[in-house]
Amino acid sequence: MTDKASPSRIPLTVLGAGAMGAALVRAWLAAGHPVTVWNRTPARAEALAAEGAAVARTAAEAVAASRLVIVCLLDDASVGEALDGADLAGRDLVNLTTGTPAQGRARAAWAAARGARFVDAGIMAVPPMIGDPDSGAYVFYSGSSALFEEHRDTLAVPAGTHWAGEDPGFAALHDVALLSAMTGMFAGVLHAFALIRAEDIAPKDFAPLLSGWLTAMTPAVHKAAEQIQSGDYGKDVVSNLAMQVAGNATLLRTAEEQGVSAELLAPYMALTERRLADGHGDEDISGVVELLGRRHGPGA
Amino acid sequence: MTDKASPSRIPLTVLGAGAMGAALVRAWLAAGHPVTVWNRTPARAEALAAEGAAVARTAAEAVAASRLVIVCLLDDASVGEALDGADLAGRDLVNLTTGTPAQGRARAAWAAARGARFVDAGIMAVPPMIGDPDSGAYVFYSGSSALFEEHRDTLAVPAGTHWAGEDPGFAALHDVALLSAMTGMFAGVLHAFALIRAEDIAPKDFAPLLSGWLTAMTPAVHKAAEQIQSGDYGKDVVSNLAMQVAGNATLLRTAEEQGVSAELLAPYMALTERRLADGHGDEDISGVVELLGRRHGPGA
Repeated sequence: MTDKASPSRIPLTVLGAGAMGAALVRAWLAAGHPVTVWNRTPARAEALAAEGAAVARTAAEAVAASRLVIVCLLDDASVGEALDGADLAGRDLVNLTTGTPAQGRARAAWAAARGARFVDAGIMAVPPMIGDPDSGAYVFYSGSSALFEEHRDTLAVPAGTHWAGEDPGFAALHDVALLSAMTGMFAGVLHAFALIRAEDIAPKDFAPLLSGWLTAMTPAVHKAAEQIQSGDYGKDVVSNLAMQVAGNATLLRTAEEQGVSAELLAPYMALTERRLADGHGDEDISGVVELLGRRHGPGA
Repeated sequence: MTDKASPSRIPLTVLGAGAMGAALVRAWLAAGHPVTVWNRTPARAEALAAEGAAVARTAAEAVAASRLVIVCLLDDASVGEALDGADLAGRDLVNLTTGTPAQGRARAAWAAARGARFVDAGIMAVPPMIGDPDSGAYVFYSGSSALFEEHRDTLAVPAGTHWAGEDPGFAALHDVALLSAMTGMFAGVLHAFALIRAEDIAPKDFAPLLSGWLTAMTPAVHKAAEQIQSGDYGKDVVSNLAMQVAGNATLLRTAEEQGVSAELLAPYMALTERRLADGHGDEDISGVVELLGRRHGPGA
């Protein structure tokens, strides 16, 4: 226990002291929680001992130290390996390890079979944001709502909390969906910078225009959501698919003029053209989602 | 002239009465400018006559009616065709027709050879935003700064103005760069919706998370700009390229689990892997821009 430890702050265990695990440990220590930490490479855990953490020699020992066990390891396989010999009966397991929805669900079943309550989690932050209430960092949680409700205040210490539902796969699904959208945005941003840097235009002068434009365009997400939810892509269309496809030519020609590869834009354009060929030219581009995969529901 | 026409409002001509051209005409009429309009299909111009516009039978006649001539046609070829027989000497030509930087530059030389001053323009708006000062709509202008300075107030009537430089290609370049970035963002957004709609998650519930996340990520544009401007991609790296590439696997695996094609994310991931293979794993992902095209400057 640290000097700051308070009897009202419940003790917890953190498995994993990488950049994210260490940031979590520090946030809980700073809030007065007694923290036991274990890391496969002991040196990383020892560094946290100086800041008040108790260091366990084995994962099983760490799990035995606290009912609330936070897992933040490299990947799902590491979770299985680390917890192989630990007694999980009666434990509350919060899995902050990055994974897929299926891994979250399988891990929930695995935990249940060992007598533990379980929530999976997806962290929408990088380590420097952890413990800073102004950073906007938050974590998706899904699985056992009983666990989540009991520990909500403790979980809210390092970052904001967002409940994603009883399906233990939903935390990872929300996490990955947002990261995937961000990946698309970064791809577009890099294409834009490639276009202007072929000219005497300073990226730093262009950046405010770019971030302002993207921020101004984010409300389009809400309109797309309505259309995707209803399956009616023809309502309130301002710039229809046919116009967008016509506009693609200007984007491609400009890339060519500027000596920039259009490979990051090409697949999206190909899908808009396929959707146009399917007879949806008068609809909104959000209908392209129909070409990407299956829809939930009866018969889907 | 309309009842609202004021002697302090200079007369102007608009070539093109499509959705955007008509919106521009209405904005200038509403502000009291005498407007002469021409459209290849006369019916669209006649509709604006009822609102106070004078209708010219030919483009040449429309050009003769006002010194300030706004061109908003289908594409660059339409501009050349429409103005083929017009006397442009002494005219101030503002080209709001969508085009590429090279088309803007060629059109500027073409106008100069005919004795006209010229600015090219790129409209960052859809027609319903025109004339609404709260819409955030604005237009990039580049070319003759003398023309732009003289007519800045008039040009500011339908939408905000942003000067992009003396190079007549820069308005189109800025326009296309922002649209390209938006295309990437939309691609990411549609992938995200495809992931969640395979489950019992309402797109409308997910939308605020998605728009909030993308808005929160736009400041990354400024950091990327600094790195791209300096060419130093190794400064202030939080989540490096190697970590991002490792994360790609979770995104791809999740897409597969959800039955969603990863085609919209694949090219970006391929570039990050190429950049990693080139030895830049410790750097930021913004260095991927180096794989997309040439850089301005000596020897570039």
